[in-house]
Amino acid sequence: MAASAAISHFPGSFDRSAFPPPRLDARPVDREAWIAAFRTVRDETERRAAPLSPEDQQVQSMEDASPTKWHRAHTTWFFEQFLLCAHRPDYRIYDERLHYLFNSYYVQAGPRQPRFMRGMITRPTAEETRGYRTHVDVAVEALLREASSETLETILPILEIGLYHEQQHQELMLTDILHAFAQNPLGPTYDEAWRWPASDGAQGRVELSRGITQIGHDGEGFAFDNESPRHDVLVLPATIDRALVTNAQWLDFIADGGYARAELWLSDGWGKLQAEGWEAPGYWRRNEDGWSSMTLAGIRPIDPAQPVTHISYYEADAFARWSGRDLPTEAEWEIAARDGLLGDAFGHVWQWTRSAYGPYPGYRPLPGALGEYNGKFMSNQYVLRGSSIATSEGHARVGYRNFFYAHQRWQFTGLRLSDARA
Amino acid sequence: MAASAAISHFPGSFDRSAFPPPRLDARPVDREAWIAAFRTVRDETERRAAPLSPEDQQVQSMEDASPTKWHRAHTTWFFEQFLLCAHRPDYRIYDERLHYLFNSYYVQAGPRQPRFMRGMITRPTAEETRGYRTHVDVAVEALLREASSETLETILPILEIGLYHEQQHQELMLTDILHAFAQNPLGPTYDEAWRWPASDGAQGRVELSRGITQIGHDGEGFAFDNESPRHDVLVLPATIDRALVTNAQWLDFIADGGYARAELWLSDGWGKLQAEGWEAPGYWRRNEDGWSSMTLAGIRPIDPAQPVTHISYYEADAFARWSGRDLPTEAEWEIAARDGLLGDAFGHVWQWTRSAYGPYPGYRPLPGALGEYNGKFMSNQYVLRGSSIATSEGHARVGYRNFFYAHQRWQFTGLRLSDARA
Amino acid sequence: MAASAAISHFPGSFDRSAFPPPRLDARPVDREAWIAAFRTVRDETERRAAPLSPEDQQVQSMEDASPTKWHRAHTTWFFEQFLLCAHRPDYRIYDERLHYLFNSYYVQAGPRQPRFMRGMITRPTAEETRGYRTHVDVAVEALLREASSETLETILPILEIGLYHEQQHQELMLTDILHAFAQNPLGPTYDEAWRWPASDGAQGRVELSRGITQIGHDGEGFAFDNESPRHDVLVLPATIDRALVTNAQWLDFIADGGYARAELWLSDGWGKLQAEGWEAPGYWRRNEDGWSSMTLAGIRPIDPAQPVTHISYYEADAFARWSGRDLPTEAEWEIAARDGLLGDAFGHVWQWTRSAYGPYPGYRPLPGALGEYNGKFMSNQYVLRGSSIATSEGHARVGYRNFFYAHQRWQFTGLRLSDARA
Amino acid sequence: MAASAAISHFPGSFDRSAFPPPRLDARPVDREAWIAAFRTVRDETERRAAPLSPEDQQVQSMEDASPTKWHRAHTTWFFEQFLLCAHRPDYRIYDERLHYLFNSYYVQAGPRQPRFMRGMITRPTAEETRGYRTHVDVAVEALLREASSETLETILPILEIGLYHEQQHQELMLTDILHAFAQNPLGPTYDEAWRWPASDGAQGRVELSRGITQIGHDGEGFAFDNESPRHDVLVLPATIDRALVTNAQWLDFIADGGYARAELWLSDGWGKLQAEGWEAPGYWRRNEDGWSSMTLAGIRPIDPAQPVTHISYYEADAFARWSGRDLPTEAEWEIAARDGLLGDAFGHVWQWTRSAYGPYPGYRPLPGALGEYNGKFMSNQYVLRGSSIATSEGHARVGYRNFFYAHQRWQFTGLRLSDARA
Repeated sequence: MAASAAISHFPGSFDRSAFPPPRLDARPVDREAWIAAFRTVRDETERRAAPLSPEDQQVQSMEDASPTKWHRAHTTWFFEQFLLCAHRPDYRIYDERLHYLFNSYYVQAGPRQPRFMRGMITRPTAEETRGYRTHVDVAVEALLREASSETLETILPILEIGLYHEQQHQELMLTDILHAFAQNPLGPTYDEAWRWPASDGAQGRVELSRGITQIGHDGEGFAFDNESPRHDVLVLPATIDRALVTNAQWLDFIADGGYARAELWLSDGWGKLQAEGWEAPGYWRRNEDGWSSMTLAGIRPIDPAQPVTHISYYEADAFARWSGRDLPTEAEWEIAARDGLLGDAFGHVWQWTRSAYGPYPGYRPLPGALGEYNGKFMSNQYVLRGSSIATSEGHARVGYRNFFYAHQRWQFTGLRLSDARA
Repeated sequence: MAASAAISHFPGSFDRSAFPPPRLDARPVDREAWIAAFRTVRDETERRAAPLSPEDQQVQSMEDASPTKWHRAHTTWFFEQFLLCAHRPDYRIYDERLHYLFNSYYVQAGPRQPRFMRGMITRPTAEETRGYRTHVDVAVEALLREASSETLETILPILEIGLYHEQQHQELMLTDILHAFAQNPLGPTYDEAWRWPASDGAQGRVELSRGITQIGHDGEGFAFDNESPRHDVLVLPATIDRALVTNAQWLDFIADGGYARAELWLSDGWGKLQAEGWEAPGYWRRNEDGWSSMTLAGIRPIDPAQPVTHISYYEADAFARWSGRDLPTEAEWEIAARDGLLGDAFGHVWQWTRSAYGPYPGYRPLPGALGEYNGKFMSNQYVLRGSSIATSEGHARVGYRNFFYAHQRWQFTGLRLSDARA
Repeated sequence: MAASAAISHFPGSFDRSAFPPPRLDARPVDREAWIAAFRTVRDETERRAAPLSPEDQQVQSMEDASPTKWHRAHTTWFFEQFLLCAHRPDYRIYDERLHYLFNSYYVQAGPRQPRFMRGMITRPTAEETRGYRTHVDVAVEALLREASSETLETILPILEIGLYHEQQHQELMLTDILHAFAQNPLGPTYDEAWRWPASDGAQGRVELSRGITQIGHDGEGFAFDNESPRHDVLVLPATIDRALVTNAQWLDFIADGGYARAELWLSDGWGKLQAEGWEAPGYWRRNEDGWSSMTLAGIRPIDPAQPVTHISYYEADAFARWSGRDLPTEAEWEIAARDGLLGDAFGHVWQWTRSAYGPYPGYRPLPGALGEYNGKFMSNQYVLRGSSIATSEGHARVGYRNFFYAHQRWQFTGLRLSDARA
Repeated sequence: MAASAAISHFPGSFDRSAFPPPRLDARPVDREAWIAAFRTVRDETERRAAPLSPEDQQVQSMEDASPTKWHRAHTTWFFEQFLLCAHRPDYRIYDERLHYLFNSYYVQAGPRQPRFMRGMITRPTAEETRGYRTHVDVAVEALLREASSETLETILPILEIGLYHEQQHQELMLTDILHAFAQNPLGPTYDEAWRWPASDGAQGRVELSRGITQIGHDGEGFAFDNESPRHDVLVLPATIDRALVTNAQWLDFIADGGYARAELWLSDGWGKLQAEGWEAPGYWRRNEDGWSSMTLAGIRPIDPAQPVTHISYYEADAFARWSGRDLPTEAEWEIAARDGLLGDAFGHVWQWTRSAYGPYPGYRPLPGALGEYNGKFMSNQYVLRGSSIATSEGHARVGYRNFFYAHQRWQFTGLRLSDARA
């Protein structure tokens, strides 16, 4: 499996020796290694927040996005709620009222601040949020050190999911602040040094031959519940491109009337295009010198060689139709990627598949509130595979199932083409 | 394959000897048989409109529904646009302005009345619409009689799709007027004699064993483009109920807090439930004597033995989760139905599957405006299989892929349960 | 006071000898004259509905408008509710369920069909509504003949308000069906013979000199409660035009960028203009030959000599500002009209004043549900004076206070200019 | 005229010797006095912002409100745009891009950030905004010192309007942050020491006798354009309460079903009540101990003796109707206040009048963009008189015409009762 791309420009550095954490079944349990992994992930969150002013961290620019500060607090609440409150009897809750503010969508964990109101919460401040984080960090580390072996058995799976949960929010921190900055005519810069990673240069097409194979979590290392159960799939003959679709190709699509020809679009997609006035990928703006785009490094000219990004499923689908081709299924993608056949599979852009997001056969969510993590979102969304430039170190894997609504495009989303055959 | 249920209570009778029409490749072409099929379908539309006053035919009670009069005119426009204008050079268009009014969604066929404004068109009146229908009927029949053999080759596939298209609208005429009548506190009656068809009484469960098989159109008889290409699928071990879920079972679900327990619901479904105040299937109303429901025969008590209907995908999914079971995939449904293993498969209620509506591998839509028929709706919807009490005679078939959005419930939609296994 | 203009083109004719009814304090009470007045008004409603098909009578084209059938039934309900149910003990209610359907906004008279859902009620049909009207007509006439003198004292004021109420709805029947027809690209015609009445040709300006005078109902004849109490007002020096603003003047306003210059507009008006895309009065459409407009006689070219109509208060205000002038206050209008100084005051277009609609000093509404008639609308609206071509015979008077929201323009609304001075 | 109440609890103190500035026609021009007034007002803005974190200053909690930071920047832009850019040729604009961000609604001054997006602007930060303010302050003071006498003649009226403009925003800073804090379940405190000023204890009623008198700006001191021209009004006999309506009275209104009886309400008001779920004044919340309210000092129990506040016009009107009384007109209020007859006229709550906000007879706005200040809002709003606890020192005056929409209640708005007679 390909390694995820480093986001090398951040101040400080992610401790690759500490993450991922040990396997859950490793014996004896290496408490210090788990603490190190915990610290590494928690530090990375703060590292991503560091370039942002208190004002930047406050803003919620649309209902889909959340404030930086909220991400920092919510990930902390997650450990407090599911680890400390549940498994450390003498734990002193930092502030009970924060549970209402920073629960995201766990109905079983109690009522919560309405999503679209997250940006209204000015107190605690960004600085005070640091206090909340520290309080919880200290308690978690103490718990890891002091817990009995039995307790450890119980809490390590929760800790582990908490770490991957926080990494998911680390990605959202970048996509959400980019969206916020894009609302500002001044075009603020998150990181002057931000740049696309180099492509691995893979070209050509991969042929998948007909046959039964397996996809899903094979039991090695961490996976979310939605990656299970591992199960047989029948792959039909198909062809997948090794390379991602580039901005150069997308400019051809635009030039050929891609955004003006209804016959290329799904009906829902055409409705959205008209309602939103889409005529290019998200954040693109046309000026006298051609197209530029809002990026984490501010407004930059479009680079034809880079993969296109900030496109919705509707745009990916229309592009495929315009090309006389298809999007791959998630099974096709996973099989090809597992064999190392895809170029730039990780660390560039998430890749839309034509697979609607649903349960694998026999899927059952985790019991309790953590069962709300993935299962309840299994409708009306599409699966994306791979990972993006914003994905945290160690978080990309071949079986990972990301999912978004067909109209969403504030993530680093792109595509690769395939040909489906019956 | 099971026959579709007759809606026997309508005045007059559907001419079963005339429909379905001859096979397209039958030689010599039996022009009179095609004319008879055309008349049979066209008459059925008028037969369904007959109980309705001009006012009833005028009303559009929500954007998803259309006025009866609009259905009558739109199906006529379909033949005028795609058959007469395209293939009968001396055809005199009845009124050019109607093309704007009665085009539904064919972007390539020109601009059209916005969907939600269909109910604003009081002229032509219901009576005048009859004139439009007659004008087109006469011309179509003349075309069928007089066309050269070459022309006939070209137009019969269009005629055939037009017949099935009109039958689809016949079903909508019933579901749409039911929705309209349900807005009226007086609870008007479409047909006093309307009643549920008798169940075939099948009980128990069908076991599907693991294996590769084929689904999709096998080339026999008519099918829409979305039923092709026929292709291999891998069926995993599964169990499907022979019987449909009944109102009695649904009352248990309600009594057990089915509409009040968030953990049973998809997130989007729970949001819809809260926004709409759902606490029972569509049209159900609670009074001192228990539950009753608006039906085509007016307001009637809920019959526990009948299949539950007017449920959304979200409700079907929540019910399955509450039952500790699943919805079948469309492949599982088709395979079981093809072998005659399902009870009440046709003529009662459409049955939600857990399959998102998408293209079969290698699917390509028809060229031209008719290509907009099915393909452009392949996102954000779910496949339903079988047919309902409102489905027209001869329109049900085992490979038929109906589709609706997950929140929609004004159709006669129900479910059967299954167990999925990896 | 100027007479209201006849709408001479309608089939049949309004019986001018029968309306207005006798004075309430006339003794002895002339029962037959009241019955004649009742018949005259009731007949006029049916006369206005006569050109309309059942479909036309069904449609509600926006929330502000109501179906013709609804107007016919609601005016009938008014007599049933306030006259028959209240004052004729043995009266048999036609159908209790209609009270829910046809109560407009009288909260104290019970719950009612939501306003925006009036167009959903297909039953009773237009024809059945005639039965309702006849049932009530017979009972009202019997009541008028048979009531004791004491009862008569009580019911005549209610009868009288019912007659004027029905006349208000007669005007709405025309404005509402015009709006409905305007949604139809076919541009249906209500009355081919419809035309503007001749102007009285008054020109020039009227000077009002400073002084205290009285406005409001002087006790002669009928008036709504909002025209009382009569009270002193101080009139400041002002100048009022005798003529209405014409389409010719409005075309100059358009040509001078009237709809494109924000500085001419109230802020709320500019917002509305942008949201709705206003660039001309309501129903105007531009084509290659210039401007035409949807009228009761179908689509007709704009006649420069006629008064401009279908303008909102915002447009009237912007036009006045562009002209360097003002709109008159309602007091200025009434004083000038009372002295016969205004041209075309009645029977052409309602004339916006710059007076916000509020209570006269010391105003108290009628007790009971009829008190909801006028008083509860005394906010956020502006007073219009005069009457329009759609106003019923005998319904115009110098003290009449019509009122609409500043953005509304589906009525026959126009303006005359004035100059205000401190 | 009564003095406005001091908000004594703020850190630092408002320099009462420096404000209001000299009369415009004072000769010779006292440049230092103008500079002192400028500094005093500018300092007060910063003083009001001082207790707020950068996050607090960032948030926009509804479209009607604006971020603190925006107020600080917008008031600065006002001086830059209208004073420096227009009248100091060598002025170096701080950052041209800020003109887009911080123009509020001056269409003639160029395009601007959409109002509802003001909270999205995280850069410049609160701290950077201080730099903008300082840059402009230095330039304004230099201009005041160095300008020629002729220039001074031109700019002093602009400076003066800028000072009063900034004071208006000072009031909004408090009302807007209170609204923002009210969205936070934690109930943050703006100022622990905040409290209501003492009442002057006036009781009883004032009788106004019939007669002609004058209202509007008499030429003494500053006034906005909407206070002119001074003009005659006829006052009818009326009675006005000297005291404001208190919370104790309001609790009686609530207890008597004030929020549940449609007959007490204007129709638009009742609609708003139902849509918003109003059952008490803004910010009131009921708990086991009775009613409390969000205030600038956090959540505090309702004090029965204090004037009711955060009520809409609709509520004021309903309360008056429930009391069998009226709201005064703005003329009645001004006449009584001018003679010192009203208690607690200033510095407690703005008092709704029953006068719709419109132009005084002969009113003409200032030329140019500053003409957009008041005139374009003269529709659909109601006049409030007096001033509130949040009003800046020196900003209250007897002729001041404040105005808000009938549904708005985030200001410190209350009422006093009167009796109107014809």
